[in-house]
Amino acid sequence: MINVGIIGGTGYTGVELLRLLLGHPQVHIQAVTSRGEAGTRIANMFPNLRKRLALNFTEPSLENLSQCQLVFFATPNGIAMKMAEELLQAGIKIIDLAADFRIKNAELWTQWYMMEHSCPHLLTEAVYGLPEVNRAAIAQARLVANPGCYPTAVQLGLIPLLEAGLIQVDNLIADVKSGVSGAGRKANVSMLMGETGESFKAYSVAGHRHLPEIEQGLNRFTQVPVHLTFVPHLVPMIRGIHATLYSSLYDKAIDLQQLYLNRYQDEPFVDVLPPGSHPETRSVRGANTCQIAVHRPQNGNTVVVLSVIDNLVKGAAGQAVQNMNIMFGLPETLGLEGIGLLP
Amino acid sequence: MINVGIIGGTGYTGVELLRLLLGHPQVHIQAVTSRGEAGTRIANMFPNLRKRLALNFTEPSLENLSQCQLVFFATPNGIAMKMAEELLQAGIKIIDLAADFRIKNAELWTQWYMMEHSCPHLLTEAVYGLPEVNRAAIAQARLVANPGCYPTAVQLGLIPLLEAGLIQVDNLIADVKSGVSGAGRKANVSMLMGETGESFKAYSVAGHRHLPEIEQGLNRFTQVPVHLTFVPHLVPMIRGIHATLYSSLYDKAIDLQQLYLNRYQDEPFVDVLPPGSHPETRSVRGANTCQIAVHRPQNGNTVVVLSVIDNLVKGAAGQAVQNMNIMFGLPETLGLEGIGLLP
Amino acid sequence: MINVGIIGGTGYTGVELLRLLLGHPQVHIQAVTSRGEAGTRIANMFPNLRKRLALNFTEPSLENLSQCQLVFFATPNGIAMKMAEELLQAGIKIIDLAADFRIKNAELWTQWYMMEHSCPHLLTEAVYGLPEVNRAAIAQARLVANPGCYPTAVQLGLIPLLEAGLIQVDNLIADVKSGVSGAGRKANVSMLMGETGESFKAYSVAGHRHLPEIEQGLNRFTQVPVHLTFVPHLVPMIRGIHATLYSSLYDKAIDLQQLYLNRYQDEPFVDVLPPGSHPETRSVRGANTCQIAVHRPQNGNTVVVLSVIDNLVKGAAGQAVQNMNIMFGLPETLGLEGIGLLP
Amino acid sequence: MINVGIIGGTGYTGVELLRLLLGHPQVHIQAVTSRGEAGTRIANMFPNLRKRLALNFTEPSLENLSQCQLVFFATPNGIAMKMAEELLQAGIKIIDLAADFRIKNAELWTQWYMMEHSCPHLLTEAVYGLPEVNRAAIAQARLVANPGCYPTAVQLGLIPLLEAGLIQVDNLIADVKSGVSGAGRKANVSMLMGETGESFKAYSVAGHRHLPEIEQGLNRFTQVPVHLTFVPHLVPMIRGIHATLYSSLYDKAIDLQQLYLNRYQDEPFVDVLPPGSHPETRSVRGANTCQIAVHRPQNGNTVVVLSVIDNLVKGAAGQAVQNMNIMFGLPETLGLEGIGLLP
Repeated sequence: MINVGIIGGTGYTGVELLRLLLGHPQVHIQAVTSRGEAGTRIANMFPNLRKRLALNFTEPSLENLSQCQLVFFATPNGIAMKMAEELLQAGIKIIDLAADFRIKNAELWTQWYMMEHSCPHLLTEAVYGLPEVNRAAIAQARLVANPGCYPTAVQLGLIPLLEAGLIQVDNLIADVKSGVSGAGRKANVSMLMGETGESFKAYSVAGHRHLPEIEQGLNRFTQVPVHLTFVPHLVPMIRGIHATLYSSLYDKAIDLQQLYLNRYQDEPFVDVLPPGSHPETRSVRGANTCQIAVHRPQNGNTVVVLSVIDNLVKGAAGQAVQNMNIMFGLPETLGLEGIGLLP
Repeated sequence: MINVGIIGGTGYTGVELLRLLLGHPQVHIQAVTSRGEAGTRIANMFPNLRKRLALNFTEPSLENLSQCQLVFFATPNGIAMKMAEELLQAGIKIIDLAADFRIKNAELWTQWYMMEHSCPHLLTEAVYGLPEVNRAAIAQARLVANPGCYPTAVQLGLIPLLEAGLIQVDNLIADVKSGVSGAGRKANVSMLMGETGESFKAYSVAGHRHLPEIEQGLNRFTQVPVHLTFVPHLVPMIRGIHATLYSSLYDKAIDLQQLYLNRYQDEPFVDVLPPGSHPETRSVRGANTCQIAVHRPQNGNTVVVLSVIDNLVKGAAGQAVQNMNIMFGLPETLGLEGIGLLP
Repeated sequence: MINVGIIGGTGYTGVELLRLLLGHPQVHIQAVTSRGEAGTRIANMFPNLRKRLALNFTEPSLENLSQCQLVFFATPNGIAMKMAEELLQAGIKIIDLAADFRIKNAELWTQWYMMEHSCPHLLTEAVYGLPEVNRAAIAQARLVANPGCYPTAVQLGLIPLLEAGLIQVDNLIADVKSGVSGAGRKANVSMLMGETGESFKAYSVAGHRHLPEIEQGLNRFTQVPVHLTFVPHLVPMIRGIHATLYSSLYDKAIDLQQLYLNRYQDEPFVDVLPPGSHPETRSVRGANTCQIAVHRPQNGNTVVVLSVIDNLVKGAAGQAVQNMNIMFGLPETLGLEGIGLLP
Repeated sequence: MINVGIIGGTGYTGVELLRLLLGHPQVHIQAVTSRGEAGTRIANMFPNLRKRLALNFTEPSLENLSQCQLVFFATPNGIAMKMAEELLQAGIKIIDLAADFRIKNAELWTQWYMMEHSCPHLLTEAVYGLPEVNRAAIAQARLVANPGCYPTAVQLGLIPLLEAGLIQVDNLIADVKSGVSGAGRKANVSMLMGETGESFKAYSVAGHRHLPEIEQGLNRFTQVPVHLTFVPHLVPMIRGIHATLYSSLYDKAIDLQQLYLNRYQDEPFVDVLPPGSHPETRSVRGANTCQIAVHRPQNGNTVVVLSVIDNLVKGAAGQAVQNMNIMFGLPETLGLEGIGLLP
């Protein structure tokens, strides 16, 4: 059994992590912290956990976490970087679900996240936790930066094309749509149901924080840096991300379906759909799966990749559990067998 | 043309009032105030008003409102009672869409609204703005207390039965369901789409502020005070209230359909549906209509009344415009001809 | 391992049953039938099952089901009664998720379901599959009639009061709200999202088929037959039932909270919430749990019970799996440990 | 007053047309036909029209329409082409909201709509009813082909760039999202709320019927034919289309904001938002407005245009009324003054 702690358990990634970890046969939840809710019974805030979790939220002190072998940060950006050093020195591994350790370049991070990085020396050590790319490094890591939700959907969709060198990298387009849970569980007029229900809009077209993360990830596979136009949109639903990815092929002769099948044939959580498919976010609701379909409309040289995930699972908590399994030498799918809730 | 002002124009009743007043041929909007947003262009906050409203929000000072003949309060509870005296003395009529002047008994008001009433001497003068009950008094009023959304749907549904003395008044049940816009447009975790979407719940079962308002309204028609069990619920949609009302008939022989048709035959905004109907909130979306159906399941002595309104229209802004029309001697339906947006 | 078959696997209860059974450690799915879709790969119709289920739909013949120890009917009403005899004679147990064996009185059944019952002699043997009432009989049964979704939520909410003889039984009210999946997965204009989204309505106020089932279930606990007013409503969400139940207490002195806690203390799937709670359907989404809260507003003699389930789980497929576990001597919660998907 | 008839009034464009025409001061509705519902009171099917429309559906015969000066076809594709000749010969003008007369090339039409065109000789005469492009021709037309919903949003978004010759035309991308009402009001499992709610997907990536219509429209402004990748998506909401349009600029020096402002400065129904805006579909819900914002992310050479309409208004019934106003010499905005219903 792995003793784990969760720092910042009052948000949507927190409760989703609890749902998954409570169903994981090799995990014991030692502590769940919340500065604001310390003393509150967790299952009072999240009644889906009743009869399954008897813990109260506790203060986020090292003392409360000292028995843990692993700590998940399900906190806002900027928290993990302040506590990471201390935890690592105590021999506790870390998976950060926030963005603190995702960007290797501290200046770039500061530019997008608008705060100084308080722990830049750990950026090199931190391993970007996308198992389909980084499995071996994750297995050795003390500190894993769990990818963002949009970056997971976009990278899994584009990597096969980039690895194979098939597409022009200076004009990638990611038109991505997310359910509202991606914005988190904090008081905010713009995320009221009265504001987001029965409506659809783009946001942050001028630049979204996940852009540098995606570009950094994609650049691993190219000789010149990619140029990506990334437009996120808000969908009036709770869970799910749908990435629609556009790029121009150098050569139309390639069998794209086979390329994707080959790339992901050993991946337990990436599922390449049959030719002509249109993945739906609901098919992966609650599941750690990324479903992908590849199209080349009218047999032209534009390739259209459709990639769906549950932003709270493969886009956050599920991927974190996958990373935990890898870090601790467990079967990668352990505790992640849940089937998508359809309808 | 009537010069009107709106105090507190940043909420859902505010923007709905603007939508209706901008389409009203006899209204000129003089000023829309907001302490927090003074200086902001209104149409920037509510882009549906672009090309139709060039005003900015202004400070809620008497000076900014002095040219008005009528002021609407679309503010939180407790604001109108502080400004009402001053406005009335300046010769400005008032329609308060909040609850400050709805309850005649200041102590009862304080008990439910948890603040002292700062202007109890106006409670007697204030006219409860339910035109189907109070039309003549509204026509003479300086100060109208616009009814709450739940109270409108429930009273219109029960009044014919009470007026006719047909039901037991000690065991009324109002099981009422509202869209989320009823909770207003303020930052609040519990009203996020992530919290209210795809879910259904009751709330305030122990007691909701609209209970004393409904009971006061119903007691006008009975010799002994009614006893009402009022259970509000939250529906994952934006607009609409559906009241399901249960009471026990003394006498099953009555023709309930005819009773309702007679009671509302001259009412422009109450529509009694044919026998066997099930009104849908969408049929009145955006319209000032209350649609009602009366059932007596299995020919028993329980009568079930179904009553639907748009909480922001007949339950708030539309009813306020209706009251304005009455107060200023205009045709009651002027500016309220909009047909429900279906689907 | 139990070999099971599913007859009629193309609806929402079918796919939900597959989701649960694929996660059940003691079940092997032998066959899933569909007359219309025979030959189609099941996971093509329901992509959430990809990588988990390799079967095709087959014809609903005895031959295809002969290896099964248990067959679930997830068919429309009127199918199970035609095949039941044959299956039982082949030594195959049956759980019918439709209504064919729920009503003991064949004439009453015909009156509500508008067809002759083709197998009335099995009505006596059939066991009504509400484990909280009938556990011992279920354990011995060959043929279990799985309860309807509304009846499950209503009965679990009212039984403690009726068993204790605390309420007037001639004036029970069940105001019940259901998500749209309760209407099944069949082409029907009235269930389009364009018709049901962003709207709320009651339906079948004159009489719904679940009324006689509920009354039959409640009458077990009373000396005189209950009289129930049952009003179902349609909520613009997919999963979930919320029952709001009203009755009049003979005696206000009783501790209702303790009554409910005692009644359900040993029940793994009924969860009595703390006093003052308002259960939300989302807390049980995907889970086999019924969450209940008991209120007595204003300390009056009206008791208000709030009861929520997922209509597809505790209201259908989950309860069927629970019944299977009981019938085959397995731990009752096996395969039903899934935690509700919140948000 | 213009006497108008509607052929095929039982769908969403039909009821929306009725809503708008009933509010139009210069229109008299003579007849609304429906083969299947002849004899049914229209307001029974669409209760939002109660108290406003006393007509029954009638048979779609020339006799029933002979008093009309204008007939709207709100029918499925393939109906208008069979009746158009006869109506025109009777001196009745036509606005077809279906696709029969949109594509000038009958062979291309047949290829995409999979039926022979029964009236190809009228294709030349038919005027494509996009007023922002074709106002003068519409004013003279007997037969107007009302544009599709997607084509309206996409063309209005791209035309300024194409007219000015600013973008590469061989690699246009239109990633477009629509609410479910776009699929119409017909029994169809895939459009049930249980299928489309709380989920997001692309569809018809291989080729959608609106593609040739859009290309034909865009080609008016280019010397070489455009190549467009058009990917439609389904949003879990009822009304609204959001087009996200991508193209590559030849020259970054241009002031795109000013270009759009200039192009649409005299257009009553196209509203160019301030720089940095993100239009929301809800801002135009129920209104005939197209709101557009232009972005050039990171000051690169990719231009991103965001364009929103209500698919049933500017994308169908509202644009039809706009065309009617033009055809009959009325003020273009008459009857179309309704403000978007927000929230």
